[in-house]
Amino acid sequence: MEFEISIGKTARRAYGFDEVAIVPSRRTRDPEDVDITWEIDAYRFSLPMMASAMDAAVSPATAVEIGRVGGLACLNLEGLWTRYEDPTGVYDEIAGLPDEKATRRMQELYAEPIKEELIGRRIEEIRAGGVTSCASLTPQKVERYAHLTLEAGLDVLVVQGTVVSGEHVSSKVEPLNLKRFIPAFDIPVIVGGCASYSTALHLMRTGAVGVLVGVGPGNACTSRGVLGIGVPQATAIADAAAARREHLHETGRYCHVIADGGMRTGGDIAKAIACGADAVMIGSPMTRAYEAPGRGYHWGMATFHPTLPRGARVKTQQVASIEEILVGPAHENDGTFNLFGALATSMATTGYETIKEFQKAELVIAPSIKTEGKTYQTQQKIGMGH
Amino acid sequence: MEFEISIGKTARRAYGFDEVAIVPSRRTRDPEDVDITWEIDAYRFSLPMMASAMDAAVSPATAVEIGRVGGLACLNLEGLWTRYEDPTGVYDEIAGLPDEKATRRMQELYAEPIKEELIGRRIEEIRAGGVTSCASLTPQKVERYAHLTLEAGLDVLVVQGTVVSGEHVSSKVEPLNLKRFIPAFDIPVIVGGCASYSTALHLMRTGAVGVLVGVGPGNACTSRGVLGIGVPQATAIADAAAARREHLHETGRYCHVIADGGMRTGGDIAKAIACGADAVMIGSPMTRAYEAPGRGYHWGMATFHPTLPRGARVKTQQVASIEEILVGPAHENDGTFNLFGALATSMATTGYETIKEFQKAELVIAPSIKTEGKTYQTQQKIGMGH
Amino acid sequence: MEFEISIGKTARRAYGFDEVAIVPSRRTRDPEDVDITWEIDAYRFSLPMMASAMDAAVSPATAVEIGRVGGLACLNLEGLWTRYEDPTGVYDEIAGLPDEKATRRMQELYAEPIKEELIGRRIEEIRAGGVTSCASLTPQKVERYAHLTLEAGLDVLVVQGTVVSGEHVSSKVEPLNLKRFIPAFDIPVIVGGCASYSTALHLMRTGAVGVLVGVGPGNACTSRGVLGIGVPQATAIADAAAARREHLHETGRYCHVIADGGMRTGGDIAKAIACGADAVMIGSPMTRAYEAPGRGYHWGMATFHPTLPRGARVKTQQVASIEEILVGPAHENDGTFNLFGALATSMATTGYETIKEFQKAELVIAPSIKTEGKTYQTQQKIGMGH
Amino acid sequence: MEFEISIGKTARRAYGFDEVAIVPSRRTRDPEDVDITWEIDAYRFSLPMMASAMDAAVSPATAVEIGRVGGLACLNLEGLWTRYEDPTGVYDEIAGLPDEKATRRMQELYAEPIKEELIGRRIEEIRAGGVTSCASLTPQKVERYAHLTLEAGLDVLVVQGTVVSGEHVSSKVEPLNLKRFIPAFDIPVIVGGCASYSTALHLMRTGAVGVLVGVGPGNACTSRGVLGIGVPQATAIADAAAARREHLHETGRYCHVIADGGMRTGGDIAKAIACGADAVMIGSPMTRAYEAPGRGYHWGMATFHPTLPRGARVKTQQVASIEEILVGPAHENDGTFNLFGALATSMATTGYETIKEFQKAELVIAPSIKTEGKTYQTQQKIGMGH
Repeated sequence: MEFEISIGKTARRAYGFDEVAIVPSRRTRDPEDVDITWEIDAYRFSLPMMASAMDAAVSPATAVEIGRVGGLACLNLEGLWTRYEDPTGVYDEIAGLPDEKATRRMQELYAEPIKEELIGRRIEEIRAGGVTSCASLTPQKVERYAHLTLEAGLDVLVVQGTVVSGEHVSSKVEPLNLKRFIPAFDIPVIVGGCASYSTALHLMRTGAVGVLVGVGPGNACTSRGVLGIGVPQATAIADAAAARREHLHETGRYCHVIADGGMRTGGDIAKAIACGADAVMIGSPMTRAYEAPGRGYHWGMATFHPTLPRGARVKTQQVASIEEILVGPAHENDGTFNLFGALATSMATTGYETIKEFQKAELVIAPSIKTEGKTYQTQQKIGMGH
Repeated sequence: MEFEISIGKTARRAYGFDEVAIVPSRRTRDPEDVDITWEIDAYRFSLPMMASAMDAAVSPATAVEIGRVGGLACLNLEGLWTRYEDPTGVYDEIAGLPDEKATRRMQELYAEPIKEELIGRRIEEIRAGGVTSCASLTPQKVERYAHLTLEAGLDVLVVQGTVVSGEHVSSKVEPLNLKRFIPAFDIPVIVGGCASYSTALHLMRTGAVGVLVGVGPGNACTSRGVLGIGVPQATAIADAAAARREHLHETGRYCHVIADGGMRTGGDIAKAIACGADAVMIGSPMTRAYEAPGRGYHWGMATFHPTLPRGARVKTQQVASIEEILVGPAHENDGTFNLFGALATSMATTGYETIKEFQKAELVIAPSIKTEGKTYQTQQKIGMGH
Repeated sequence: MEFEISIGKTARRAYGFDEVAIVPSRRTRDPEDVDITWEIDAYRFSLPMMASAMDAAVSPATAVEIGRVGGLACLNLEGLWTRYEDPTGVYDEIAGLPDEKATRRMQELYAEPIKEELIGRRIEEIRAGGVTSCASLTPQKVERYAHLTLEAGLDVLVVQGTVVSGEHVSSKVEPLNLKRFIPAFDIPVIVGGCASYSTALHLMRTGAVGVLVGVGPGNACTSRGVLGIGVPQATAIADAAAARREHLHETGRYCHVIADGGMRTGGDIAKAIACGADAVMIGSPMTRAYEAPGRGYHWGMATFHPTLPRGARVKTQQVASIEEILVGPAHENDGTFNLFGALATSMATTGYETIKEFQKAELVIAPSIKTEGKTYQTQQKIGMGH
Repeated sequence: MEFEISIGKTARRAYGFDEVAIVPSRRTRDPEDVDITWEIDAYRFSLPMMASAMDAAVSPATAVEIGRVGGLACLNLEGLWTRYEDPTGVYDEIAGLPDEKATRRMQELYAEPIKEELIGRRIEEIRAGGVTSCASLTPQKVERYAHLTLEAGLDVLVVQGTVVSGEHVSSKVEPLNLKRFIPAFDIPVIVGGCASYSTALHLMRTGAVGVLVGVGPGNACTSRGVLGIGVPQATAIADAAAARREHLHETGRYCHVIADGGMRTGGDIAKAIACGADAVMIGSPMTRAYEAPGRGYHWGMATFHPTLPRGARVKTQQVASIEEILVGPAHENDGTFNLFGALATSMATTGYETIKEFQKAELVIAPSIKTEGKTYQTQQKIGMGH
């Protein structure tokens, strides 16, 4: 539905997770009967999830643990683990920085050059844990470093930037041609972010096995503040799902839609799937694990761009194990624990059996604006669950 | 009205109580001339209300008092009163738990097995008070325990879960078939929750005398956070009312629509009726009574699910007697006292005489977003009531 | 525009002052050339305003001062001034009550019976000040006391309740028939509140010279909380203005639309006129005067209803003289001073010359949701006024 | 799209920057390949920006520095710099005033008469810095002082008021006829503010080289509070851009649309361009410079209107140099530094090469309502920028 911003300028209304809710169907199910496994290319995971390539969330060690629990962790190959032989001291320093100095000092710490030999070594550390290995490079660096990932036996490569397009234009360097790179590359590639039907479709046409969907998700995302860009996630995911259908029709190939960002609770994850995602990529929930390398902080890569940092080092709480966060049991009730138990319960409660079925769940638009007295009112209905 | 979330994914806009208001008609009435009595099956109540099956709101003793004042209280038959011979000490312990330990300890306290003999005893305690007796079981337990309620002489049975559907699917156990159970059961059954036209209609077709409407009501309900599901109450109730009309047309039987949850003030209750409800089920307002067993706290059953708790123990204020909360007089002015005096005044002020008439009241969509200075502005118009 | 709340239940979207803004036309004017005078019946005022019949805002003395400055103050004939020979001590006691006891004690203070002889005396005190006299009665009391107002020489009578309809139904007493009372009464009568096209039209048909428009205005009005009723003011006023046109066409008589409540700033007053009002009735802004009888508090009549109080005693600041609040000069910049200088400047800036022209001003829907950083951002554009 | 406020009163929905976001196209670019230069009349600037004629933002010295960095600063010719030989002491006094006395004392300080000889002197001080000179007069004063600006060799004149129309009506003085004044004036004139298609078109027809767009932008602007007027910026700018197209078609002349006000971050600036602006005028971001004359405060001219002040003296933080604020590098990440580096990055990320192309960028409507937990959630997606 197009709305007129003015004479001759229209815009679509886009919706975020906070503005939609899932409607129960006329069936209910046992949670035990629900199937949330995820298969992509030759790999199969008991959880439909990836952990984001954030230094605060994924180290080689946590990648192994996340894999053990059932997910797929993605290591950032342009972060601390490839810039420092042993980043332990760097993590400690970051955790100890006073707020007013954090951005500037982290700009310096991330100015340390990437060491090529560490790329292979980190991949091997993950592989040694016996789990599927996955790591990310930016479009700018992928041609330079990708061969190293192959040599180290990486299973899945992620090519990721704030926005990645099928067609990058540059007057100075020969830009990465994803349509040539991906089909020629020996392992499956996931690529993103994108946030609309046509950008998702163009990325799918590169031959990627999956696309990451999310540019400035979250109603108050820093990308919206700093750059003014972004599409709320419910709409972005549903758009990409429509592109997946079109691409399947064109090519016969099913390209996975992976919702990336803006999910904090099990409910958010359920909504992402109900909007059409095949799996989710989550970052900050993982930084809340005892095992998280971020030591009670989290941050992203763009945070420390040398001239235009976007984001910040943010305090978080380390409150549970990776396993408790992903599959429980939960001992708190705010939706941030047992994220995938919640997904299964959500599917069971609304009557859906598989991820594919749940992608077609009925949604309502139901803004969650906070008003006075709501917190109070809210508790009243919790009472009678199964 | 369907809105496009994206290409190929649409959603209805659903409305909560905070987003609607009742419009005065061209008549006004004396509050004394308004009739708010409620008849369901063979029972008649001076107030169109049920008290929720929450341990913090309804004990056998408060059930008797609520009945005396004119309502119908529902005792939870899977809560503390059937797990403990004398739950007094358990209530005391709960009231004394520090916040950070409450969820985990209450998971343990609710792990205590249900004692069959206590089911009958609690029902008898209510019956001894001379009021209509009502109690609830979950769909999972109803076949196991329902015969005990009959033996104890229960008047009205409630079968209640977060979502109850007409068709539960299970690969492991023979699921409860409500269409077989309810017609064969000797006393009237109320069943819920549900939150849409088709789910309400399917529940009505089970032969229930009433359906509970409400899944994640309240704009910030925990079910929305943890599971992502829910339909705002104004729309859910009006949908169920439309199903009631269809069901009456199909079968000639009038099935009551009981709005369950999301109501804090007399105004919320008036809106529930004006959206089409026959009666309301309220929980947290009852925990504010001096007599409430919760001792200044309230919580629900799903709160202490062993692996996925949903909700929390919440502090409340014990501020008035059950009678003052339900029928006044009020000595505060925030709408949380004399709830049914407020309902009658609302009907009188807008010119409606009976609940059936008031169900057709005109509504406007009028979001109550808090903005700075509003509290101030607000007071100005209070001045000149009758 | 009707929106579906559900199958078979629709509702209009109604707008509040906070959701609309006035659009400049292609002309601008000198503020000195703008005419804001108001004529109703035989009376002419330099300001299009009435002061609300609130005990905290209008005493006989402030009624005289408000009249001197150019407005019309309305004294509540069922408030403290007719219950107490000298209410000074009562005002003092109210100002000194602790919050938790205020409602209950004020219920007692307002239980003091009305003394008939004081009705005439208060009216005479206003008339002695040489200004137009105006006072209010509720529909319940108007037949009993109205003759006293005539005997005392009152100029304008206001018949006011939360909602007043053209057709009150009562099984016990013969209700007030406004269609008989008003035409037979010797002085002009203003009547209200109402909040929709049809209720306004029915009130106009009683022969009133003006109708008060406003039921639960303000997005968070207590009437919405306690009773669930209300229509946001921008829509209510524009509806009543449409009824005024219809009534003029039917009868040839122009009935004034007086916006009552929900206005705090000069901008709110400008919007009320731009929505179609002929004048505004304001209460709480008047309680901010040094001369206000409320001594730093304000409250309304319904506040102390014996069994269902609606509203509260609210702290306010006494910050300027009545004259400064109404016509300036202002020495603060939040829009709460020089309210009618602001109205004239608003009309001049947008190019309108008279109240009648300004009633047709173009509006936009422009919600003023507070978001972080806004306060900061806001200040930036103030810079360059004339 | 027109919405009914009531029967017979409709209004367009207008959108603010907070309600829209830019959608990435299917291309991306190198930031270095993006061209953000701005040409207006004979002048060319490396940044598409003007600094607002606010005393707290622009002095002769900062005008030179802003010009050196690439923008165009506008000096207020009716502010402190033309009322005081040396305003240094006045700035000091303002910075030292206690809040409760600030408005009243500043009303006095701005009552000091304008000294004609200072008009020329200030212009010469800017010209001596070797940059393009620009200064503003109000419509009321432009005929009296404009010749002095010509004599002093001013390059660009700005005629600016809260609202400036093509047709000012006055009964007392012969009003300024912009259609006669501007074509006859020897230097290019920029005129504003305006906020709609028809007012922008009428101003364009005066022969101005640019129009300032913005009346009460920002969702909570003081003009909306005090006067009730305003149009949210996204709609106002897009309306003016539509008028620019019509005017070009009528006359063959391209009149620049300069978004004035409501922009705090690089994202806001990007949105202004994406809505159709050729350049932006910013004020409060400039007061955050170490060099800003406001010494940690900012305020506007209307702030100290003698009888109806609109706005306030506001505390700000002096946090970076003018150069860092405009072109970086940034060492914080909230979007308020390196504003035009952010614009270039936004264009590159979404695939646009020039300002003209970026004016056609796709937008979505995506309200940024703050909800609990959002701040947390938000940070998560920052991770993977280029």
